Amino acid sequence: MKSKNHLLFLFLVFLSLSSAFLSKKTKHHKPCKTLVLYFHDIIYNGKNTANATSAIVTAPPGYNLTILAGNFHLGNIAVLDDPITLDNNLHSKPVGQAQGLHMYDTKNTFTAWLGFSFVLNTTEYKGSINFIGADPILVEERDISVVGGTGEFFMHRGIATIMTDTFESEVYFWLRVDIKFC
Amino acid sequence: MKSKNHLLFLFLVFLSLSSAFLSKKTKHHKPCKTLVLYFHDIIYNGKNTANATSAIVTAPPGYNLTILAGNFHLGNIAVLDDPITLDNNLHSKPVGQAQGLHMYDTKNTFTAWLGFSFVLNTTEYKGSINFIGADPILVEERDISVVGGTGEFFMHRGIATIMTDTFESEVYFWLRVDIKFC
Amino acid sequence: MKSKNHLLFLFLVFLSLSSAFLSKKTKHHKPCKTLVLYFHDIIYNGKNTANATSAIVTAPPGYNLTILAGNFHLGNIAVLDDPITLDNNLHSKPVGQAQGLHMYDTKNTFTAWLGFSFVLNTTEYKGSINFIGADPILVEERDISVVGGTGEFFMHRGIATIMTDTFESEVYFWLRVDIKFC
Repeated sequence: MKSKNHLLFLFLVFLSLSSAFLSKKTKHHKPCKTLVLYFHDIIYNGKNTANATSAIVTAPPGYNLTILAGNFHLGNIAVLDDPITLDNNLHSKPVGQAQGLHMYDTKNTFTAWLGFSFVLNTTEYKGSINFIGADPILVEERDISVVGGTGEFFMHRGIATIMTDTFESEVYFWLRVDIKFC
Repeated sequence: MKSKNHLLFLFLVFLSLSSAFLSKKTKHHKPCKTLVLYFHDIIYNGKNTANATSAIVTAPPGYNLTILAGNFHLGNIAVLDDPITLDNNLHSKPVGQAQGLHMYDTKNTFTAWLGFSFVLNTTEYKGSINFIGADPILVEERDISVVGGTGEFFMHRGIATIMTDTFESEVYFWLRVDIKFC
Repeated sequence: MKSKNHLLFLFLVFLSLSSAFLSKKTKHHKPCKTLVLYFHDIIYNGKNTANATSAIVTAPPGYNLTILAGNFHLGNIAVLDDPITLDNNLHSKPVGQAQGLHMYDTKNTFTAWLGFSFVLNTTEYKGSINFIGADPILVEERDISVVGGTGEFFMHRGIATIMTDTFESEVYFWLRVDIKFC
Protein backbone atom coordinates (compact mmCIF):
# COMPACT_ATOMS: atom_id res chain seq x y z
CA MET A 1 0.00 0.00 0.00
CA LYS A 2 2.86 2.30 0.79
CA SER A 3 4.31 2.03 -2.68
CA LYS A 4 0.83 2.75 -4.10
CA ASN A 5 0.69 5.84 -1.91
CA HIS A 6 4.07 6.86 -3.15
CA LEU A 7 3.00 6.48 -6.75
CA LEU A 8 -0.03 8.64 -6.08
CA PHE A 9 2.15 11.21 -4.37
CA LEU A 10 4.52 11.30 -7.27
CA PHE A 11 1.64 11.58 -9.69
CA LEU A 12 0.19 14.53 -7.76
CA VAL A 13 3.55 16.27 -7.52
CA PHE A 14 4.05 15.69 -11.23
CA LEU A 15 0.53 17.03 -11.91
CA SER A 16 1.15 20.21 -9.93
CA LEU A 17 4.56 20.86 -11.38
CA SER A 18 3.66 20.02 -14.96
CA SER A 19 0.53 22.14 -14.76
CA ALA A 20 2.53 25.09 -13.47
CA PHE A 21 5.17 24.47 -16.13
CA LEU A 22 2.69 24.06 -18.98
CA SER A 23 0.70 27.13 -18.02
CA LYS A 24 3.91 29.15 -18.01
CA LYS A 25 4.99 27.68 -21.33
CA THR A 26 1.60 28.27 -22.90
CA LYS A 27 1.57 31.84 -21.75
CA HIS A 28 5.01 32.74 -22.94
CA HIS A 29 6.18 30.53 -25.73
CA LYS A 30 3.63 28.35 -27.45
CA PRO A 31 1.06 29.96 -29.74
CA CYS A 32 -2.25 28.17 -29.41
CA LYS A 33 -3.53 28.89 -32.90
CA THR A 34 -2.16 30.39 -36.05
CA LEU A 35 -4.00 32.08 -38.86
CA VAL A 36 -2.42 33.40 -42.05
CA LEU A 37 -4.34 36.13 -43.85
CA TYR A 38 -3.60 38.80 -46.43
CA PHE A 39 -5.03 42.25 -46.82
CA HIS A 40 -4.94 44.61 -49.75
CA ASP A 41 -4.72 48.39 -49.54
CA ILE A 42 -5.49 50.67 -52.47
CA ILE A 43 -5.02 54.31 -51.52
CA TYR A 44 -7.47 56.85 -52.91
CA ASN A 45 -5.62 59.14 -55.34
CA GLY A 46 -8.47 61.34 -56.52
CA LYS A 47 -9.21 59.16 -59.58
CA ASN A 48 -9.73 55.60 -58.31
CA THR A 49 -12.98 55.96 -56.36
CA ALA A 50 -14.28 52.60 -57.57
CA ASN A 51 -11.21 50.60 -56.52
CA ALA A 52 -9.83 52.56 -53.57
CA THR A 53 -10.00 50.85 -50.17
CA SER A 54 -8.25 53.45 -48.03
CA ALA A 55 -8.28 57.23 -47.80
CA ILE A 56 -5.69 59.69 -46.54
CA VAL A 57 -7.36 61.95 -43.96
CA THR A 58 -4.47 64.11 -42.74
CA ALA A 59 -1.54 65.59 -44.60
CA PRO A 60 1.37 67.83 -43.61
CA PRO A 61 1.51 71.43 -44.92
CA GLY A 62 2.11 71.47 -48.66
CA TYR A 63 0.39 68.15 -49.35
CA ASN A 64 -3.21 67.20 -50.06
CA LEU A 65 -5.28 64.09 -49.34
CA THR A 66 -4.76 62.36 -52.69
CA ILE A 67 -1.07 61.50 -52.43
CA LEU A 68 1.18 60.14 -49.68
CA ALA A 69 3.41 63.00 -48.50
CA GLY A 70 7.17 63.22 -49.01
CA ASN A 71 9.28 63.12 -45.85
CA PHE A 72 8.52 59.44 -45.28
CA HIS A 73 4.77 60.21 -45.37
CA LEU A 74 5.19 61.92 -41.99
CA GLY A 75 1.88 63.50 -41.03
CA ASN A 76 -0.34 61.21 -43.08
CA ILE A 77 -3.10 59.30 -41.36
CA ALA A 78 -5.12 56.97 -43.58
CA VAL A 79 -8.34 55.12 -42.75
CA LEU A 80 -8.85 51.72 -44.33
CA ASP A 81 -11.51 49.22 -45.27
CA ASP A 82 -9.34 46.65 -47.03
CA PRO A 83 -10.43 43.23 -48.28
CA ILE A 84 -8.88 40.26 -46.47
CA THR A 85 -8.06 37.16 -48.51
CA LEU A 86 -6.64 33.71 -47.86
CA ASP A 87 -3.84 34.20 -50.39
CA ASN A 88 -1.92 37.12 -51.83
CA ASN A 89 -4.26 37.62 -54.79
CA LEU A 90 -6.26 40.84 -54.66
CA HIS A 91 -8.98 39.16 -56.71
CA SER A 92 -9.51 36.17 -54.43
CA LYS A 93 -12.84 36.02 -52.66
CA PRO A 94 -12.59 38.19 -49.52
CA VAL A 95 -13.14 36.51 -46.12
CA GLY A 96 -13.53 39.85 -44.34
CA GLN A 97 -12.43 43.44 -44.08
CA ALA A 98 -9.47 45.10 -42.35
CA GLN A 99 -10.77 48.34 -40.82
CA GLY A 100 -9.02 51.06 -38.85
CA LEU A 101 -6.10 53.37 -39.43
CA HIS A 102 -2.43 53.55 -40.28
CA MET A 103 -0.35 56.62 -39.64
CA TYR A 104 3.17 57.73 -40.42
CA ASP A 105 5.05 59.22 -37.50
CA THR A 106 8.76 59.42 -38.31
CA LYS A 107 10.85 62.04 -40.12
CA ASN A 108 13.90 59.98 -41.05
CA THR A 109 12.61 56.53 -42.03
CA PHE A 110 9.38 54.77 -43.02
CA THR A 111 7.56 53.86 -39.83
CA ALA A 112 3.83 53.46 -39.33
CA TRP A 113 1.64 53.00 -36.30
CA LEU A 114 -1.35 50.74 -36.74
CA GLY A 115 -4.70 50.41 -35.00
CA PHE A 116 -7.11 48.17 -36.86
CA SER A 117 -9.47 45.20 -36.76
CA PHE A 118 -9.99 42.14 -38.92
CA VAL A 119 -13.74 41.69 -39.28
CA LEU A 120 -14.32 38.13 -40.49
CA ASN A 121 -17.70 36.78 -41.47
CA THR A 122 -17.58 33.49 -43.34
CA THR A 123 -18.60 29.96 -42.54
CA GLU A 124 -15.02 29.35 -41.38
CA TYR A 125 -14.40 32.49 -39.35
CA LYS A 126 -16.94 34.60 -37.47
CA GLY A 127 -15.68 37.39 -35.27
CA SER A 128 -13.19 40.20 -35.12
CA ILE A 129 -9.53 40.44 -34.15
CA ASN A 130 -8.12 43.73 -32.84
CA PHE A 131 -4.54 44.84 -33.39
CA ILE A 132 -2.29 47.73 -32.41
CA GLY A 133 1.40 48.32 -32.71
CA ALA A 134 4.37 50.04 -34.25
CA ASP A 135 5.23 48.93 -37.78
CA PRO A 136 8.83 49.56 -38.89
CA ILE A 137 7.82 49.15 -42.52
CA LEU A 138 11.27 48.50 -43.96
CA VAL A 139 11.90 45.52 -41.68
CA GLU A 140 10.96 42.31 -43.48
CA GLU A 141 9.06 40.73 -40.57
CA ARG A 142 7.71 42.88 -37.77
CA ASP A 143 5.38 42.10 -34.89
CA ILE A 144 2.36 43.94 -33.57
CA SER A 145 0.01 42.92 -30.75
CA VAL A 146 -3.30 41.13 -30.94
CA VAL A 147 -5.03 42.94 -28.07
CA GLY A 148 -8.45 41.34 -28.17
CA GLY A 149 -11.14 39.64 -30.17
CA THR A 150 -14.86 39.09 -30.43
CA GLY A 151 -17.09 36.23 -31.60
CA GLU A 152 -15.03 33.09 -31.99
CA PHE A 153 -11.96 35.12 -31.07
CA PHE A 154 -13.39 36.15 -27.69
CA MET A 155 -10.61 36.82 -25.16
CA HIS A 156 -7.87 36.06 -27.68
CA ARG A 157 -4.46 37.71 -27.40
CA GLY A 158 -1.07 37.28 -29.00
CA ILE A 159 0.99 38.72 -31.78
CA ALA A 160 0.79 39.13 -35.52
CA THR A 161 3.83 39.09 -37.77
CA ILE A 162 3.43 41.44 -40.72
CA MET A 163 5.25 41.09 -44.02
CA THR A 164 4.95 43.51 -46.95
CA ASP A 165 5.37 42.34 -50.46
CA THR A 166 6.75 44.85 -52.89
CA PHE A 167 4.49 47.82 -53.46
CA GLU A 168 2.84 46.81 -56.74
CA SER A 169 2.13 50.41 -57.72
CA GLU A 170 2.16 53.84 -56.15
CA VAL A 171 -1.20 53.20 -54.55
CA TYR A 172 -1.45 49.43 -54.04
CA PHE A 173 0.29 47.25 -51.51
CA TRP A 174 -0.66 44.10 -49.69
CA LEU A 175 0.43 42.67 -46.36
CA ARG A 176 0.70 39.10 -45.16
CA VAL A 177 -0.32 38.72 -41.52
CA ASP A 178 0.65 35.64 -39.51
CA ILE A 179 -1.52 35.70 -36.43
CA LYS A 180 -0.40 33.62 -33.42
CA PHE A 181 -2.88 33.81 -30.57
CA CYS A 182 -4.82 32.04 -27.83
CA MET B 1 -5.95 6.00 8.70
CA LYS B 2 -5.67 4.64 5.22
CA SER B 3 -9.22 5.65 4.32
CA LYS B 4 -8.49 9.12 5.68
CA ASN B 5 -5.48 9.23 3.42
CA HIS B 6 -7.59 8.22 0.49
CA LEU B 7 -10.11 10.94 1.17
CA LEU B 8 -7.34 13.49 1.27
CA PHE B 9 -5.96 12.12 -1.98
CA LEU B 10 -9.30 12.36 -3.65
CA PHE B 11 -9.80 15.85 -2.31
CA LEU B 12 -6.43 16.94 -3.69
CA VAL B 13 -7.09 15.38 -7.08
CA PHE B 14 -10.47 17.07 -7.17
CA LEU B 15 -8.87 20.37 -6.17
CA SER B 16 -6.29 20.18 -8.96
CA LEU B 17 -8.73 19.14 -11.64
CA SER B 18 -11.52 21.50 -10.67
CA SER B 19 -9.10 24.39 -10.47
CA ALA B 20 -7.77 23.62 -13.94
CA PHE B 21 -11.29 23.20 -15.26
CA LEU B 22 -12.66 26.35 -13.68
CA SER B 23 -9.78 28.50 -14.82
CA LYS B 24 -10.32 27.32 -18.39
CA LYS B 25 -14.06 27.91 -18.23
CA THR B 26 -13.63 31.34 -16.73
CA LYS B 27 -11.22 32.39 -19.40
CA HIS B 28 -13.26 31.34 -22.37
CA HIS B 29 -16.95 31.29 -21.62
CA LYS B 30 -18.14 32.94 -18.44
CA PRO B 31 -18.04 36.70 -18.08
CA CYS B 32 -17.01 37.55 -14.55
CA LYS B 33 -18.74 40.89 -14.30
CA THR B 34 -21.16 42.93 -16.33
CA LEU B 35 -21.66 46.65 -16.38
CA VAL B 36 -24.30 48.48 -18.40
CA LEU B 37 -23.55 52.10 -19.18
CA TYR B 38 -24.73 54.71 -21.68
CA PHE B 39 -22.86 57.50 -23.33
CA HIS B 40 -24.11 60.54 -25.15
CA ASP B 41 -22.44 62.18 -28.13
CA ILE B 42 -23.32 65.66 -29.33
CA ILE B 43 -21.29 66.61 -32.38
CA TYR B 44 -20.03 70.18 -32.68
CA ASN B 45 -21.80 71.86 -35.61
CA GLY B 46 -20.36 75.36 -35.38
CA LYS B 47 -23.23 76.68 -33.24
CA ASN B 48 -23.56 74.36 -30.22
CA THR B 49 -20.31 75.10 -28.36
CA ALA B 50 -22.00 74.94 -24.96
CA ASN B 51 -23.58 71.51 -25.50
CA ALA B 52 -21.20 69.78 -27.90
CA THR B 53 -19.26 66.81 -26.52
CA SER B 54 -17.40 65.72 -29.64
CA ALA B 55 -15.59 67.48 -32.46
CA ILE B 56 -14.87 66.42 -36.01
CA VAL B 57 -11.12 66.81 -36.64
CA THR B 58 -10.69 65.47 -40.17
CA ALA B 59 -12.93 65.75 -43.22
CA PRO B 60 -12.67 64.58 -46.82
CA PRO B 61 -12.19 67.16 -49.61
CA GLY B 62 -15.31 69.29 -50.03
CA TYR B 63 -16.40 69.04 -46.38
CA ASN B 64 -15.56 71.07 -43.29
CA LEU B 65 -15.31 70.23 -39.60
CA THR B 66 -18.85 71.24 -38.60
CA ILE B 67 -20.85 68.54 -40.40
CA LEU B 68 -20.45 64.79 -40.87
CA ALA B 69 -19.45 64.17 -44.48
CA GLY B 70 -21.59 62.49 -47.13
CA ASN B 71 -20.30 59.17 -48.47
CA PHE B 72 -21.03 57.40 -45.19
CA HIS B 73 -18.93 59.97 -43.31
CA LEU B 74 -15.83 58.37 -44.89
CA GLY B 75 -12.81 60.43 -43.90
CA ASN B 76 -14.24 61.89 -40.70
CA ILE B 77 -12.38 61.37 -37.46
CA ALA B 78 -14.07 62.81 -34.37
CA VAL B 79 -12.64 63.16 -30.86
CA LEU B 80 -15.03 62.80 -27.97
CA ASP B 81 -15.50 63.66 -24.31
CA ASP B 82 -19.00 62.29 -23.80
CA PRO B 83 -20.88 62.03 -20.50
CA ILE B 84 -21.53 58.46 -19.29
CA THR B 85 -24.80 57.79 -17.49
CA LEU B 86 -26.48 54.82 -15.82
CA ASP B 87 -29.59 55.12 -18.03
CA ASN B 88 -30.39 56.45 -21.49
CA ASN B 89 -31.24 59.95 -20.31
CA LEU B 90 -28.77 62.61 -21.43
CA HIS B 91 -29.69 64.66 -18.36
CA SER B 92 -29.00 61.96 -15.77
CA LYS B 93 -26.06 62.62 -13.48
CA PRO B 94 -22.89 61.52 -15.29
CA VAL B 95 -20.75 58.80 -13.68
CA GLY B 96 -17.79 59.51 -15.93
CA GLN B 97 -16.59 60.52 -19.36
CA ALA B 98 -16.05 58.53 -22.57
CA GLN B 99 -12.87 59.89 -24.16
CA GLY B 100 -11.06 58.98 -27.37
CA LEU B 101 -11.98 58.85 -31.03
CA HIS B 102 -14.35 57.41 -33.57
CA MET B 103 -13.59 57.35 -37.26
CA TYR B 104 -15.45 56.42 -40.41
CA ASP B 105 -13.53 54.19 -42.79
CA THR B 106 -15.89 52.70 -45.37
CA LYS B 107 -17.18 54.00 -48.70
CA ASN B 108 -20.28 51.84 -49.16
CA THR B 109 -21.84 51.48 -45.71
CA PHE B 110 -21.74 53.09 -42.25
CA THR B 111 -18.80 51.59 -40.38
CA ALA B 112 -16.77 53.18 -37.62
CA TRP B 113 -13.59 52.23 -35.85
CA LEU B 114 -13.39 53.09 -32.18
CA GLY B 115 -10.58 53.69 -29.74
CA PHE B 116 -11.75 55.16 -26.45
CA SER B 117 -11.78 54.95 -22.67
CA PHE B 118 -14.44 55.11 -20.02
CA VAL B 119 -13.07 57.26 -17.20
CA LEU B 120 -15.21 56.60 -14.14
CA ASN B 121 -14.87 58.47 -10.89
CA THR B 122 -17.74 57.98 -8.48
CA THR B 123 -18.14 56.27 -5.15
CA GLU B 124 -19.28 53.17 -7.05
CA TYR B 125 -16.70 53.06 -9.84
CA LYS B 126 -13.13 54.33 -9.76
CA GLY B 127 -10.89 53.60 -12.70
CA SER B 128 -10.81 53.49 -16.46
CA ILE B 129 -11.78 50.89 -19.05
CA ASN B 130 -10.09 50.89 -22.46
CA PHE B 131 -11.80 49.77 -25.66
CA ILE B 132 -10.92 49.28 -29.32
CA GLY B 133 -12.75 47.67 -32.18
CA ALA B 134 -14.65 47.86 -35.42
CA ASP B 135 -18.22 49.11 -35.14
CA PRO B 136 -20.58 48.10 -37.98
CA ILE B 137 -23.00 50.85 -36.98
CA LEU B 138 -26.06 49.49 -38.75
CA VAL B 139 -25.93 46.15 -36.94
CA GLU B 140 -28.18 46.24 -33.90
CA GLU B 141 -25.73 44.62 -31.47
CA ARG B 142 -22.00 44.64 -32.23
CA ASP B 143 -19.01 43.73 -30.10
CA ILE B 144 -15.74 45.50 -29.51
CA SER B 145 -12.87 44.49 -27.21
CA VAL B 146 -12.14 45.60 -23.69
CA VAL B 147 -8.33 45.63 -23.93
CA GLY B 148 -7.41 46.82 -20.47
CA GLY B 149 -8.32 48.82 -17.42
CA THR B 150 -6.90 50.81 -14.55
CA GLY B 151 -7.91 51.42 -10.94
CA GLU B 152 -10.57 48.93 -9.93
CA PHE B 153 -10.53 47.60 -13.48
CA PHE B 154 -6.80 46.74 -13.33
CA MET B 155 -5.99 43.83 -15.67
CA HIS B 156 -9.59 43.54 -16.88
CA ARG B 157 -10.34 42.23 -20.36
CA GLY B 158 -13.41 41.13 -22.27
CA ILE B 159 -15.93 42.50 -24.69
CA ALA B 160 -18.49 45.26 -24.86
CA THR B 161 -21.72 44.98 -26.81
CA ILE B 162 -22.75 48.31 -28.30
CA MET B 163 -26.31 49.25 -29.23
CA THR B 164 -27.35 52.53 -30.85
CA ASP B 165 -30.72 53.99 -30.23
CA THR B 166 -32.13 56.04 -33.06
CA PHE B 167 -30.22 59.20 -33.76
CA GLU B 168 -32.31 61.77 -31.89
CA SER B 169 -31.18 64.64 -34.11
CA GLU B 170 -28.56 65.32 -36.73
CA VAL B 171 -25.93 65.87 -34.06
CA TYR B 172 -27.03 63.77 -31.05
CA PHE B 173 -26.91 60.03 -30.58
CA TRP B 174 -26.41 57.80 -27.59
CA LEU B 175 -25.02 54.31 -27.24
CA ARG B 176 -25.77 51.58 -24.73
CA VAL B 177 -22.66 49.60 -23.78
CA ASP B 178 -22.93 46.19 -22.10
CA ILE B 179 -19.50 45.44 -20.73
CA LYS B 180 -18.66 41.80 -19.93
CA PHE B 181 -15.20 41.45 -18.46
CA CYS B 182 -12.91 39.91 -15.84
CA MET C 1 6.10 6.63 7.86
CA LYS C 2 2.74 8.07 8.68
CA SER C 3 4.21 11.33 9.89
CA LYS C 4 6.25 11.48 6.66
CA ASN C 5 3.03 10.99 4.71
CA HIS C 6 1.42 13.73 6.68
CA LEU C 7 4.23 16.11 5.95
CA LEU C 8 3.92 15.33 2.27
CA PHE C 9 0.17 15.86 2.42
CA LEU C 10 0.59 19.17 4.12
CA PHE C 11 3.20 20.17 1.60
CA LEU C 12 0.89 19.29 -1.29
CA VAL C 13 -2.04 21.13 0.25
CA PHE C 14 0.19 24.12 0.84
CA LEU C 15 1.44 23.88 -2.76
CA SER C 16 -2.09 23.82 -4.21
CA LEU C 17 -3.43 26.58 -2.04
CA SER C 18 -0.42 28.83 -2.32
CA SER C 19 -0.33 28.35 -6.07
CA ALA C 20 -4.02 29.24 -6.37
CA PHE C 21 -3.54 32.15 -4.04
CA LEU C 22 -0.42 33.45 -5.73
CA SER C 23 -1.90 33.17 -9.20
CA LYS C 24 -4.89 35.21 -8.05
CA LYS C 25 -2.66 37.74 -6.35
CA THR C 26 -0.38 37.97 -9.35
CA LYS C 27 -3.26 38.62 -11.67
CA HIS C 28 -4.92 41.29 -9.65
CA HIS C 29 -2.51 42.96 -7.30
CA LYS C 30 1.17 42.21 -7.73
CA PRO C 31 3.02 43.58 -10.76
CA CYS C 32 5.44 40.99 -12.04
CA LYS C 33 7.97 43.39 -13.45
CA THR C 34 8.54 47.11 -13.39
CA LEU C 35 10.34 49.28 -15.89
CA VAL C 36 10.88 53.03 -15.52
CA LEU C 37 11.47 54.92 -18.74
CA TYR C 38 11.28 58.52 -19.92
CA PHE C 39 10.29 59.93 -23.25
CA HIS C 40 10.84 63.35 -24.70
CA ASP C 41 8.45 65.16 -27.01
CA ILE C 42 9.46 68.20 -29.05
CA ILE C 43 6.53 69.50 -31.09
CA TYR C 44 7.21 70.77 -34.59
CA ASN C 45 6.58 74.53 -34.67
CA GLY C 46 7.53 75.32 -38.25
CA LYS C 47 11.12 76.23 -37.38
CA ASN C 48 12.59 73.27 -35.45
CA THR C 49 12.71 70.59 -38.15
CA ALA C 50 16.05 69.26 -36.94
CA ASN C 51 14.98 68.77 -33.31
CA ALA C 52 11.24 68.12 -33.57
CA THR C 53 10.07 64.63 -32.60
CA SER C 54 6.31 65.06 -33.00
CA ALA C 55 4.02 66.77 -35.49
CA ILE C 56 0.52 68.14 -35.13
CA VAL C 57 -1.64 66.62 -37.89
CA THR C 58 -5.10 68.01 -37.12
CA ALA C 59 -6.18 71.42 -35.85
CA PRO C 60 -9.53 73.02 -35.13
CA PRO C 61 -10.78 75.86 -37.35
CA GLY C 62 -8.64 78.97 -36.91
CA TYR C 63 -5.45 77.10 -36.03
CA ASN C 64 -2.67 75.63 -38.13
CA LEU C 65 -0.35 72.63 -37.70
CA THR C 66 2.58 74.50 -36.13
CA ILE C 67 1.08 75.45 -32.77
CA LEU C 68 -1.09 73.67 -30.19
CA ALA C 69 -4.59 75.14 -30.38
CA GLY C 70 -6.24 77.24 -27.68
CA ASN C 71 -9.32 75.72 -26.03
CA PHE C 72 -7.23 73.11 -24.21
CA HIS C 73 -5.75 71.97 -27.55
CA LEU C 74 -9.14 70.44 -28.38
CA GLY C 75 -9.02 69.11 -31.93
CA ASN C 76 -5.27 68.57 -32.10
CA ILE C 77 -3.95 65.14 -32.96
CA ALA C 78 -0.17 64.79 -32.94
CA VAL C 79 1.95 61.88 -34.17
CA LEU C 80 5.17 61.16 -32.34
CA ASP C 81 8.53 59.48 -32.71
CA ASP C 82 10.07 60.45 -29.39
CA PRO C 83 13.39 59.22 -27.97
CA ILE C 84 13.11 57.02 -24.87
CA THR C 85 15.81 57.37 -22.22
CA LEU C 86 16.64 55.75 -18.88
CA ASP C 87 16.62 59.10 -17.06
CA ASN C 88 14.97 62.48 -17.51
CA ASN C 89 17.80 63.96 -19.59
CA LEU C 90 16.87 64.60 -23.21
CA HIS C 91 20.50 64.16 -24.18
CA SER C 92 20.98 60.71 -22.62
CA LYS C 93 21.54 57.87 -25.05
CA PRO C 94 18.11 56.71 -26.29
CA VAL C 95 17.12 53.08 -25.65
CA GLY C 96 14.24 53.23 -28.13
CA GLN C 97 11.47 55.30 -29.65
CA ALA C 98 7.93 56.09 -28.50
CA GLN C 99 5.73 55.99 -31.61
CA GLY C 100 2.03 56.61 -32.07
CA LEU C 101 -0.35 59.45 -31.36
CA HIS C 102 -1.73 61.73 -28.70
CA MET C 103 -4.93 63.68 -29.15
CA TYR C 104 -6.79 66.34 -27.18
CA ASP C 105 -10.50 65.67 -26.75
CA THR C 106 -11.92 67.95 -24.06
CA LYS C 107 -13.25 71.51 -24.17
CA ASN C 108 -12.98 72.50 -20.51
CA THR C 109 -9.73 70.95 -19.24
CA PHE C 110 -6.49 69.44 -20.53
CA THR C 111 -7.16 65.80 -21.34
CA ALA C 112 -5.41 63.64 -23.89
CA TRP C 113 -6.05 60.20 -25.28
CA LEU C 114 -2.98 58.12 -26.06
CA GLY C 115 -2.27 55.23 -28.38
CA PHE C 116 1.43 54.49 -28.75
CA SER C 117 4.21 51.92 -28.59
CA PHE C 118 7.62 51.80 -26.98
CA VAL C 119 9.97 50.25 -29.53
CA LEU C 120 13.09 49.12 -27.64
CA ASN C 121 16.16 47.75 -29.30
CA THR C 122 19.19 47.56 -27.05
CA THR C 123 21.19 44.74 -25.53
CA GLU C 124 18.99 45.10 -22.41
CA TYR C 125 15.56 45.42 -24.03
CA LYS C 126 14.39 43.96 -27.33
CA GLY C 127 10.73 44.25 -28.20
CA SER C 128 7.81 46.60 -28.16
CA ILE C 129 5.23 47.55 -25.54
CA ASN C 130 1.81 48.81 -26.64
CA PHE C 131 -0.25 51.32 -24.64
CA ILE C 132 -3.65 52.95 -24.84
CA GLY C 133 -5.62 55.06 -22.42
CA ALA C 134 -7.06 58.33 -21.28
CA ASP C 135 -4.54 60.81 -19.90
CA PRO C 136 -5.94 63.50 -17.57
CA ILE C 137 -2.83 65.60 -18.05
CA LEU C 138 -3.23 67.84 -15.00
CA VAL C 139 -3.34 64.89 -12.58
CA GLU C 140 0.12 64.25 -11.19
CA GLU C 141 0.06 60.45 -11.60
CA ARG C 142 -2.34 58.85 -14.05
CA ASP C 143 -2.62 55.29 -15.33
CA ILE C 144 -3.03 53.93 -18.83
CA SER C 145 -3.15 50.28 -19.97
CA VAL C 146 -0.36 48.12 -21.30
CA VAL C 147 -2.42 46.13 -23.81
CA GLY C 148 0.25 43.93 -25.34
CA GLY C 149 3.86 43.45 -26.26
CA THR C 150 6.18 41.79 -28.72
CA GLY C 151 9.68 40.29 -28.54
CA GLU C 152 10.70 39.89 -24.92
CA PHE C 153 7.41 41.54 -23.93
CA PHE C 154 5.31 38.89 -25.72
CA MET C 155 1.90 38.51 -24.04
CA HIS C 156 2.63 41.20 -21.46
CA ARG C 157 -0.18 43.26 -19.97
CA GLY C 158 -0.57 45.69 -17.12
CA ILE C 159 -0.57 49.39 -16.47
CA ALA C 160 1.74 52.33 -16.87
CA THR C 161 1.75 55.30 -14.52
CA ILE C 162 2.55 58.52 -16.34
CA MET C 163 4.01 61.63 -14.73
CA THR C 164 4.69 64.89 -16.53
CA ASP C 165 7.46 67.14 -15.44
CA THR C 166 6.90 70.82 -16.04
CA PHE C 167 6.75 71.77 -19.67
CA GLU C 168 10.30 73.03 -20.20
CA SER C 169 9.27 75.27 -23.09
CA GLU C 170 6.28 75.82 -25.32
CA VAL C 171 7.27 72.87 -27.46
CA TYR C 172 9.20 70.50 -25.19
CA PHE C 173 7.90 68.22 -22.45
CA TRP C 174 8.95 64.87 -21.11
CA LEU C 175 7.04 62.11 -19.40
CA ARG C 176 8.15 59.55 -16.85
CA VAL C 177 6.49 56.18 -17.41
CA ASP C 178 6.44 53.53 -14.66
CA ILE C 179 5.45 50.31 -16.37
CA LYS C 180 4.09 47.49 -14.17
CA PHE C 181 3.34 44.38 -16.19
CA CYS C 182 3.51 40.60 -16.52
